[in-house]
Amino acid sequence: TQKLLSEPSPEAPRARPCRVSSADRSVRKGIMTHSLEDLRLKVQDTLMLADKPFFLVLEEDGTTVETEEYFQSLTDDTVFMVLHKGQKWQPPSEQGTRYQL
Amino acid sequence: TQKLLSEPSPEAPRARPCRVSSADRSVRKGIMTHSLEDLRLKVQDTLMLADKPFFLVLEEDGTTVETEEYFQSLTDDTVFMVLHKGQKWQPPSEQGTRYQL
Repeated sequence: TQKLLSEPSPEAPRARPCRVSSADRSVRKGIMTHSLEDLRLKVQDTLMLADKPFFLVLEEDGTTVETEEYFQSLTDDTVFMVLHKGQKWQPPSEQGTRYQL
Repeated sequence: TQKLLSEPSPEAPRARPCRVSSADRSVRKGIMTHSLEDLRLKVQDTLMLADKPFFLVLEEDGTTVETEEYFQSLTDDTVFMVLHKGQKWQPPSEQGTRYQL
């Protein structure tokens, strides 16, 4: 089945849209990604984190996303938040959302 | 029927996404699991509980989840909370949730 060969390899699942927010919610970027590992690399790059360690949580409630399996269960357009060591997730309301100047 | 053999074995229901919170709600992790027993093992591992006995309750109201049957009735993305001996479930509001600094 020659045709199949030109398909993207089955392991590389379809790239999916997601959004990534900074901890203070002042920056939010749209990113296409097909794995947690891929997302981490792109986040490091696009948010210019250099080698500062960080972890990814769900922006809605701070759930830590640390396994590929769990990442794959998430729907498109999931909003992630980048947290560095010592930073804690806060609900939008408490934080004085970025919409207030 | 060869095809059936390649299906995941019927006993292992589909892995489902859920979230697990620490008692003080300072930590919350996304976990894929297909049974209560599997969840307990993963919670022990990911929240590094070692052999400290714990039980799982629903984060929303403290309902204890201790039978496989009841566990299977729960929907995806259910939020569980880990309680150790002597710890009691508290509603988010009273606990001075992690949201307050």
